Amino acid sequence: MGYTNEVKLSPRSIDLTQVTEWADGRVRRVQDSLAGEEPLEIRVGGNPLAVTMRTPGYDLELAAGFLFTEGIIQRREQILSLEIGKPDAGTQHDTRRGTQSGTQHDTQNGNLVVAQLERDVQLDAEKTQRNFFANSSCGICGKASIEAVRSQFLRAPNAGFRARSDVLCGLPEKLGGSQDIFSRTGGLHAAGLFTTNGELVVAREDIGRHNAVDKVVGWALREGRVPLAEFILVVSGRCGFEIAQKAIAAGIPIVASVSAPSSLAVQLARELNLTLVGFLRGRRFVVYSGEERIILGSE
Amino acid sequence: MGYTNEVKLSPRSIDLTQVTEWADGRVRRVQDSLAGEEPLEIRVGGNPLAVTMRTPGYDLELAAGFLFTEGIIQRREQILSLEIGKPDAGTQHDTRRGTQSGTQHDTQNGNLVVAQLERDVQLDAEKTQRNFFANSSCGICGKASIEAVRSQFLRAPNAGFRARSDVLCGLPEKLGGSQDIFSRTGGLHAAGLFTTNGELVVAREDIGRHNAVDKVVGWALREGRVPLAEFILVVSGRCGFEIAQKAIAAGIPIVASVSAPSSLAVQLARELNLTLVGFLRGRRFVVYSGEERIILGSE
Repeated sequence: MGYTNEVKLSPRSIDLTQVTEWADGRVRRVQDSLAGEEPLEIRVGGNPLAVTMRTPGYDLELAAGFLFTEGIIQRREQILSLEIGKPDAGTQHDTRRGTQSGTQHDTQNGNLVVAQLERDVQLDAEKTQRNFFANSSCGICGKASIEAVRSQFLRAPNAGFRARSDVLCGLPEKLGGSQDIFSRTGGLHAAGLFTTNGELVVAREDIGRHNAVDKVVGWALREGRVPLAEFILVVSGRCGFEIAQKAIAAGIPIVASVSAPSSLAVQLARELNLTLVGFLRGRRFVVYSGEERIILGSE
Repeated sequence: MGYTNEVKLSPRSIDLTQVTEWADGRVRRVQDSLAGEEPLEIRVGGNPLAVTMRTPGYDLELAAGFLFTEGIIQRREQILSLEIGKPDAGTQHDTRRGTQSGTQHDTQNGNLVVAQLERDVQLDAEKTQRNFFANSSCGICGKASIEAVRSQFLRAPNAGFRARSDVLCGLPEKLGGSQDIFSRTGGLHAAGLFTTNGELVVAREDIGRHNAVDKVVGWALREGRVPLAEFILVVSGRCGFEIAQKAIAAGIPIVASVSAPSSLAVQLARELNLTLVGFLRGRRFVVYSGEERIILGSE
């Protein structure tokens, strides 16, 4: 697929601003770094598909990952081209009305990704609205959500993949060490792909945890490395249903989170044989599903 | 407005399950509590409006808050009725196909809220998809998002409201103390409304941070207490654009978060005169916007 004009770490990933710090009665005016947040529109041909609030940077990866993990495309070849678009001529924002804090964002802001997809791709609006229940025989329930993922992503996670406990324990620190923006803003989620030996392959940050995962999967899709049958996905926050869904879409066998999973993420993982690890902190973790992939002895 | 059959703390707010804990080489099978997550469909009349993954409980508040903070309704009187619906007859899930972990959710699962609204309410699908840019004169950018909020919610936050630093510092602990589910699962966001004296008025938890805020605002709407011009909203996690938007929709003058705000949340707060406090931890916080409402002396 053709990728053009990708912007990676954007100057807009971080925003510098003056703030007031109060510490036990002492007041100081200081400069602070904020995690960047701007809307991104993903358009397929001429049609708007989705708008997401995200941290600027790696937007083509984000769009590719979104198209893939939401089940809109199944193969990277279905993306004919993917590029940063410009707002339509004639609807440009009048920058003379710009305000102090936002002016530089208003022209050629890069908040639009345009994808051209193969003709056979069905753009089912319901898919992108997470209306999984529409595919189901029941009203709306967790089970229906699980069945929708099962029917949409036929790939079963690699049953033979294994990871050692001591390797798992080292991953959050490695992921944290890769977080350029978080270390300066304290405001971002991260997702990282690791090998079974604990080597970091790619890490991405975003204000939205789903976006961080989509950027990682989009990177892998672009590199021709999907399905990610030999990798561990580590996420910095909680693991809900949609993170587990995205991992299954990408064929990832193990997802590890430093925080808690949700009930539905655990149900989904158990039904579709995804290994789910939570509370991965220091020398402790909890296995919620797919324990056979974790070599529990410390060796 | 009529509210019927509200379910508050649901048995499904928490899910008990067997897990494997690994701690420095020691392996134990233990029972763990998971934060409940299930899809909720909000329907207006016969038409699906939105599906959100949420923690079951207080679903009518969530729906009312969503309708209000997304700008679909402007007054509680526009909700003629709001009730927990049942899946359509004939599309009930066949529970004989039920699986180990999900069967109890499948009949009369309560994952549907049906609202009847006044005739004059316009159901603009784009609003609920956060396509704010559609209202704007520019392509898509943070500024357009801010302008959309400005035009949608005419209410300016109470300029005369004040809060003392020492009161602010006590709020996270009070909010944490109210978190029934978090204390058992470690997996939920919380939002709470406080008076200027630091009294907790209402707190709600949810797997989704937006949902926790919507439940709080929905409660207030139901109680006839909107606009919330004399209250402080405290949120347990990061504060992004959409949290700031919801606060503005509800007329809340101060939002305080224990973590970082995003760049766009700060821009929105500055443009619309909302006070935004971040990193509220122990005896320290940072004021990002609307400093005049915070009495910085410790007195």
